Amino acid sequence: MFDIQHFTQINPPHRLLMGPGPINADPRVLRAMASQLIGQYDPVMTGYMNEVMVLYRELFRTQNRWTMLVDGTSRSGIEAILLSAIRPGDKVLVPVFGRFGHLLCEIARRCRAEVHTIEVPWGEVFTPDQIEDAIKTVKPRLLLTVQGDTSTTMLQPLAELGEICRRHGVLFYTDATASFGGNVLETDAWGLDAVSAGLQKCLGGPSGSSPITLSAQMEEVIRRRKCVEEGIRTAEHQDGDDEMIYSNYFDLGMVMDYWGPERLNHHTEATSMLFAARECARIILEEGLDVGIARHELHGRALVAGIQGMGLETFGTLQHKMNNVLGVVIPSAVHGEEVRKMLLDDFHIEIGTSFGPLQGKIWRIGTMGYNARKDCVLQTLTALEAVLNRLGFKTTQGAAMQAAWDVYSQENR
Amino acid sequence: MFDIQHFTQINPPHRLLMGPGPINADPRVLRAMASQLIGQYDPVMTGYMNEVMVLYRELFRTQNRWTMLVDGTSRSGIEAILLSAIRPGDKVLVPVFGRFGHLLCEIARRCRAEVHTIEVPWGEVFTPDQIEDAIKTVKPRLLLTVQGDTSTTMLQPLAELGEICRRHGVLFYTDATASFGGNVLETDAWGLDAVSAGLQKCLGGPSGSSPITLSAQMEEVIRRRKCVEEGIRTAEHQDGDDEMIYSNYFDLGMVMDYWGPERLNHHTEATSMLFAARECARIILEEGLDVGIARHELHGRALVAGIQGMGLETFGTLQHKMNNVLGVVIPSAVHGEEVRKMLLDDFHIEIGTSFGPLQGKIWRIGTMGYNARKDCVLQTLTALEAVLNRLGFKTTQGAAMQAAWDVYSQENR
Repeated sequence: MFDIQHFTQINPPHRLLMGPGPINADPRVLRAMASQLIGQYDPVMTGYMNEVMVLYRELFRTQNRWTMLVDGTSRSGIEAILLSAIRPGDKVLVPVFGRFGHLLCEIARRCRAEVHTIEVPWGEVFTPDQIEDAIKTVKPRLLLTVQGDTSTTMLQPLAELGEICRRHGVLFYTDATASFGGNVLETDAWGLDAVSAGLQKCLGGPSGSSPITLSAQMEEVIRRRKCVEEGIRTAEHQDGDDEMIYSNYFDLGMVMDYWGPERLNHHTEATSMLFAARECARIILEEGLDVGIARHELHGRALVAGIQGMGLETFGTLQHKMNNVLGVVIPSAVHGEEVRKMLLDDFHIEIGTSFGPLQGKIWRIGTMGYNARKDCVLQTLTALEAVLNRLGFKTTQGAAMQAAWDVYSQENR
Repeated sequence: MFDIQHFTQINPPHRLLMGPGPINADPRVLRAMASQLIGQYDPVMTGYMNEVMVLYRELFRTQNRWTMLVDGTSRSGIEAILLSAIRPGDKVLVPVFGRFGHLLCEIARRCRAEVHTIEVPWGEVFTPDQIEDAIKTVKPRLLLTVQGDTSTTMLQPLAELGEICRRHGVLFYTDATASFGGNVLETDAWGLDAVSAGLQKCLGGPSGSSPITLSAQMEEVIRRRKCVEEGIRTAEHQDGDDEMIYSNYFDLGMVMDYWGPERLNHHTEATSMLFAARECARIILEEGLDVGIARHELHGRALVAGIQGMGLETFGTLQHKMNNVLGVVIPSAVHGEEVRKMLLDDFHIEIGTSFGPLQGKIWRIGTMGYNARKDCVLQTLTALEAVLNRLGFKTTQGAAMQAAWDVYSQENR
């Protein structure tokens, strides 16, 4: 029997979220979300939309006009770009080095692309030569990459790929969901045609809005598939020559016309999420993007030192690790899920489990966004050590803390 | 030159949003959104997800197991249902009585459906016979309806359509975005196979989350198109016999597996929007769904009395008007946009303009969700009358207020 009295007001317990994301939101972002709504064509609202475009151009390091939000989780930004750019039958190349490479294949397949992949073992990344060789063989229309794949904690170097893509006439996309804001990303300097991200990792916000940026070349590709909605079509409108985009929600031509001066009605912008996205960007740019990335690098390094000091083994090629997440090999003497449960139940600290080939083999510990902080790293290390000791795994008592502390001392932080 | 100091914290002006939506969010919903985040598989989080399913079953008046949220604006819920249910080549019938009927056609076309329509002039609705006749002729697989089309303010009666659909073996969907929570909707009693909604109208929340419900029959249709994501696929998984769903984000089979006990990772649930959706439902059910609908009816009626008392003409067949929005014919003596601008600039009250054939002909005034209140109705009427008088349009001074007040007095409200 339904009784509304059983449903009390939202009151989540305090958690320190040190997994691969989502992480705790910056309280300033949560406060921004609590602002009252305004109408979608209110000049104040369209002003905020324009500001979001300016702020994210800074974060993406781009002059791209079309830098905006897709209303949905990070995956909505990926799908909007792929559905808008890929025509059925187009060849795409996906270098897969973890789960999110498989996701790009999966989405591209749903776009009815001809999907080609190259793979390296989980824990490694590709050299530019490996990717260029594959491009020469496959001759794809698009190269779809993941910058930081949280499933393996690896960061694919992208700096040289834009030049390769240009040489071979290939459109270049990267999914920066997990890396954005905590690792260097240079949209224009690296020749990226499209990038998508999310708020819930290094940006310190909640999931539910996906910032994207599109190059002029990508805009042109999308405009060729223009198809105006019947309910708002007038005589001036003309459709493009290419096959239409098989989604209304993810038709980025329509999303551009909504964010652009035409303000053609498409969806009703998710106002509270836009407030969140704006505040995330504002906080990062107040700190300075490079300063923030250096902060992620520092706390990532302190975490590595602490984990190694504890006598635990790290996962993957450390030189290619993302700043904001670390794979830790689960010692054979303990049960990984038991450790995670004790951390959550007794310390209210969440660390991540793993997928696929790494399931049960590594934990993933994140230090990102609002939680890329000394106190978060030190609390997580002490709690983890205490839990491991409790379960009978001997660490070099206290060494983890000292090693992490040393990293901070050397930087006077 | 970019300067972060130009970007101050979010500080929207107070607005009284009396258009067709979005409207002001209930402050309790905004406070719920400001709650700190928790992990997506935290037992507290999955507990909240389960509660959301229970709460929305009450709001949709259904026993449907699959009653959940799609992460995006209202349009994302529509598209998720249409993309998941419509196989390319399927015939669909859309009775169009306003802009949002055209939107269903547009989305169905993107799903590569064979789209058939019947139309009535804007301001009218269909009889069950008109719809049954079209079903007999077209023999569609799905009937796609809009319950309340804000573009015309009309509410399509749906009660008899489920029986007709069952008789002809047709799946029955309605887009209840604009009507949900402010007008009667009986998912099970009316034989609906799928319904989608949004938070930003009568539910009193922000745009960005779309509650949906699916019948067992609809589930079966979707399960026949099952296609498991490669990155998380195991040997036990089997794909369905029907053509796959051409979207990953909107594949409701995957969304079900994420909301169900399998908790198969799909997107990262938009936690703050889920908090909002839960609080919207909780507030309505504390008041009582029927009590809330009666409140919408009362304030809608008071608004009609006030507008008529002012000597203005209402739009469309009043007996089929939605409770929560009224079309008001713009008197030829004034310029509609000038009135809207004065209301916004000088009173901070927003009323709606119109689309398509009604552009420049009617205003749309909403009384919904948190703004279905006596003070909102009376303030809007006095401000509108004052603006009209200022622009030289003579009203029967004071009669509007008295007429609306009389409605409230008769009900002792």
